[in-house]
This record gives sequence, C-alpha cells and structure tokens, in this order.
Amino acid sequence: MPTITRKVQLKSIPEGLPAEDNFAIVESTLEDPAPGQVLVENLFMSVDPYMRGRMRDPSWQLSGGAVGMVIGSENNAYSIGDYVLNSQSWHEHFLSDGRGLEKIDATIAPISTYLGVMGMPGLTAYGGLLVTGEYKDGETVFVSAASGAVGSVVGQIVKIKGGIAVGSAGSEEKVRQLTEEFGFDHAFNYKTVKPLDELRKAVPGGIDIYFENVGGLQLEAALAHIKPYGRIPLCGLIAQYNDDAQKITPGPRNLGEMIYKFVSIRGFVVSKFEDMKEQFRQDMSAWIESGQIKYHETVLQGIENAPSAFIGLFSGNNNGKMLVKLAND
Amino acid sequence: MPTITRKVQLKSIPEGLPAEDNFAIVESTLEDPAPGQVLVENLFMSVDPYMRGRMRDPSWQLSGGAVGMVIGSENNAYSIGDYVLNSQSWHEHFLSDGRGLEKIDATIAPISTYLGVMGMPGLTAYGGLLVTGEYKDGETVFVSAASGAVGSVVGQIVKIKGGIAVGSAGSEEKVRQLTEEFGFDHAFNYKTVKPLDELRKAVPGGIDIYFENVGGLQLEAALAHIKPYGRIPLCGLIAQYNDDAQKITPGPRNLGEMIYKFVSIRGFVVSKFEDMKEQFRQDMSAWIESGQIKYHETVLQGIENAPSAFIGLFSGNNNGKMLVKLAND
Repeated sequence: MPTITRKVQLKSIPEGLPAEDNFAIVESTLEDPAPGQVLVENLFMSVDPYMRGRMRDPSWQLSGGAVGMVIGSENNAYSIGDYVLNSQSWHEHFLSDGRGLEKIDATIAPISTYLGVMGMPGLTAYGGLLVTGEYKDGETVFVSAASGAVGSVVGQIVKIKGGIAVGSAGSEEKVRQLTEEFGFDHAFNYKTVKPLDELRKAVPGGIDIYFENVGGLQLEAALAHIKPYGRIPLCGLIAQYNDDAQKITPGPRNLGEMIYKFVSIRGFVVSKFEDMKEQFRQDMSAWIESGQIKYHETVLQGIENAPSAFIGLFSGNNNGKMLVKLAND
Repeated sequence: MPTITRKVQLKSIPEGLPAEDNFAIVESTLEDPAPGQVLVENLFMSVDPYMRGRMRDPSWQLSGGAVGMVIGSENNAYSIGDYVLNSQSWHEHFLSDGRGLEKIDATIAPISTYLGVMGMPGLTAYGGLLVTGEYKDGETVFVSAASGAVGSVVGQIVKIKGGIAVGSAGSEEKVRQLTEEFGFDHAFNYKTVKPLDELRKAVPGGIDIYFENVGGLQLEAALAHIKPYGRIPLCGLIAQYNDDAQKITPGPRNLGEMIYKFVSIRGFVVSKFEDMKEQFRQDMSAWIESGQIKYHETVLQGIENAPSAFIGLFSGNNNGKMLVKLAND
C-alpha cells in the first residue's frame, strides 16, 4: 500500500537569516519497497547550523541526520522495528537500499540522543577536543556556544578529564545552566559582558584551548588570553553564517598573537573522527549512564515546524540539541 | 685604552610607522675587558620587522642580530679576530662575558649571511616551511613578501625540493626578480592585481601551503584558494605592524574556509627550530655554494643610518636582507 508522506524543500536560497518563506512542505507518495529496499519512517530529525552553509550551494537538497524505524523491508539485513540512523532529515519517510543506514542500539541510550550527544554533535565535541584540540588532562578550556549540543559536551568532557571549563552563552538562563547543570567552572553571557574581561577574571593564568563555535569578539578574546602553544579547534563560526556575501563580519584583528605564542587554529568537521566512532559510543553511553554527561533537547512537533526549528538555531531559541519529532516510537 | 662607541636608543615608542625622531644616537665609553670579558666590534647589524612588535613594550631595549669581531679578549674561549654572532644589534661595540656569543665560520659563507640566509631569516624560512608547514616534496606553495630575506629562501627551498613556488611582492622590479633570479614559477605585484585572481590563474588546482608574512587580502586569497588539508605557517603580519592600537586592520573575513577544508594556521617564531640549526647550516652553505640559493642584501653604512634602515623595512625600500655596516672587516 503506497505511503503518503511529506518532506521539506528549499524554495529559495536565504539571504541573511533564513525565513519560513524560504521553505516549502511538499507532499508525495512512496511505493512499497522493491526487492532489496526498506521503507523507513523517521521518528526524529535534526536541524544543525552547518546546514546554513550548505544552502549557499543551489544544487543542495535538504538533508542531514535523522533517526527512523524500518516499517517495511525487502532487504534481509533489516527487519521491521529496527532503528536506523540516516541522512534523510527533513523527510517523514523514505525508501533506501540500505546504503547510508546505520542500525543503532536503543538499549544503551535513547534513540534521540543519536542525533545529539551520542551522534554527530557528540562526536564533534569528542574528536574536536581530544584529537584536533589535543586536550591533555587538567588543561583549561574555553568554549563558546557552550550550552549548545556540541559546546555542552565539550565542557563536560573537560570536567570528566580533570580540567577547567569556561563557557559562554547568550542568556542568563543558559549561563546558569552551564555552571549548575553541566558543571562548568565559570560561565558568562557574551551579550552583556566583555569576553576578554571575563576570561581574565575567571582564569587569570590563561587558556590552553579555545573550542570555537562562534567567531567575532570571542575569538579575539581567546587569542588575547590563550597561553603559549594554545590550540583553537575551529568547529564553527555561527556569528557569521547569515552574513551577506557582500558584508561579511571581519575576522579577528589580533592574529598576530598567534606568532609569538605558537598558537594554531585548526579547521575540522566531524568526518575526521569516523574511525573513532566505536570508542566514542562506548565512552559516551557509559558517561550518560553514570550521569557524568547531561544533555538537553528542544523538541518541536511535526515536520511543518522543521523550518522554524532550523531558523531558531540562529537566535538561540533552543536549549540543547534542537530536534523535530516526526512520529511516535 | 677605553673605547669610544655609539649605540641607538629608543627615545619614544612609535605610533604607527616609526620615524627618525623616535630614535637617538648615544655616545659612550667602554672600559677595556675585565678578566673573563671580551670586547666586540660589530661589523654588520640586522634590522628586522619583528622589532616593531617589541617596541610596544616600554621596557624593551633595542637589540637583535649582529655579527662582530673580537678586538680585545680576557676570555680563553675567544681570540682576537674571532667572528661572533651576537644579539647586540644597534651597538657599535660591546663588552660580553661570552654568554650569547656564537663563533661563526667565515670560510663556508660570507659573514653578513649569518644575519640573512645563513642566519635567523634563513632558519625561519627553513623551519617554517619544512616543520611548521610540513612541506612535502612537489607541493605548491604561495609566499607573500617573497623577495624578502625569509620569503626568497622559502621559494628557493620549494624549488630545490621539486615543488611549485608562487610569490608576491610590492614592485615590478621585485616581481621580475622572483621569477628571473630566484626561480619562482609565478609572481605578482600585490599592489596592482587581485591576489585571488592571480592565484587562480597561476595554480588553478590550488595551493598546499601559504607561507604568511603579510596578512590582509593576501591571507583571504590564500584561504579561498587553499586545498583541503592546507597549512598556513604564520610567520608575520607586516601589513599590520604599524597599525594604531585603536584601528587595527581586521582579520580575514573567510576563516570559515578552514572548517570544511581542514586548514590550519600555525603561529611560530624561529626559536622553535634552534635544535635543527646544525642541519640547516649544512644544507644552506651547500645550497649557497652550488648556487641553488641566491640572496640579495641592501647595506646602509654607519650606525647613524640604522633608524632609516629599520623604517625602510615597512615601505619595502630593501631588496633582500636589510643590513647596516658598522665597521670594516
């Protein structure tokens, strides 16, 4: 029996901050799976800041991380009821020959976390801190967008491994959450205080690592206050993602600090850590189990709310990982 | 018999471009060496862009690389006539207990080159390219300020090791020199053309390394045209050295290019390569001998011209290493 389903398409390329008007909800009908195929119903889909960059490419189709359940199978590798991580975010259902699907274990962590702390954002934090950032136990780490899906994990791993964590966020409530829930040693609201003043007060001896999610004045502050041989894993520059191509926020004015201090800035994306995913999942599920890693999710209901979930990322509407729930488990 | 000598002192901290007026020539008298001491007469002194940064520190006394001859000795380790590399630039004579002096071999290279290709600028180029830049034979390297003491050596080492060298400089004459004398594959005048257009034309496949001496638009062009896993050794930002503290040139607007391309920017200074100096001197003297490394010197006469030699660095008055000759050999 054919399945009536919905997906989101880009109607136009956003200029500046994306608007509802850039998106369209489109209905279509999927046939039953052909031999070798499975039919997947997505339960949760992810919206992520990196998608904003992809939208500059006119040929890009909306996609990204989602967790679904196999509801029809003509493929021996998959049974009805299997949970599968997939890259068909923004789709309620889809047909697949199995490529690009990854079965996940719902007994070691809730399925939604495979889009958050157990998934791409968690691995980004883990690899970005431990590999790209070359974090050594006990070091002092500053992370921006610290209440977000990546930043909150960075800070908590620092604490698990005996270091000092300083975080910034964009509201008093998030700042409170950083120290009270996530265990950061210090936190500040970058909208109301001067980042460099805060860093000097909080960790007078300097920082070893700045985990960069934001750009702008926080990067300048970090460069000014980083210790010799400091590392700056460059994960994102969310402050700039919605800039017009013609008037892009300038970069830091104090790159010269890097010279005498032997500082490096290192761009990376999560694909770099694909080969450490197994170790990561073991560590992370144990940390969730023991309560050493806490997480928040902001869950909107229904694919019709996916555009506003995405847009909300840029005003910080989310508390923790932003998800859209597409169907019940 | 006491020695009447001169040195240069900073009269005031420069604002923006340094001026003659910031410097004073001061006469003094040195006693004969006490037991354990040597008296050195400097023959050549170096002026270097990095000194501009040091001048922001009010406690800094003018110093830097110089080559002198021992003219009086009460120290068994030194004989009259020994050539010594020292850090007493801006001084005609000085007394020393021997610490900080390094005897140099005038038979393997001219003594003035120990301030240039055989010295700090040469080692900066060698280590910055091979260690910090992780240069692999055959790669494509773009270097700014390419006719300078560091840049010209970077490009020539790239050619010795089988790669493609692209350089930029600030006059047509220097650009011609890059291709005709130093063997660069491509060169352009950054003042009259757009760096990104030139890079796209010269090396359509992209660059592996950008050896950064300048900052500004050339760094943006390099970030835009660098290949995945590209490295940017950050040696200097001469375009910004004379900025007022209140209106510093903004950094590159396209740091985001680093993320998906896994690019790193790595600050360094020459002290990092101290342990490879012997290997460097062996390689470099052989390359000078074989004609594979060429160099230019711009030599001004007399300590009274040291301030204008230094100031000239920032308008590109020098062709190759800028030196001041203080006395005859």
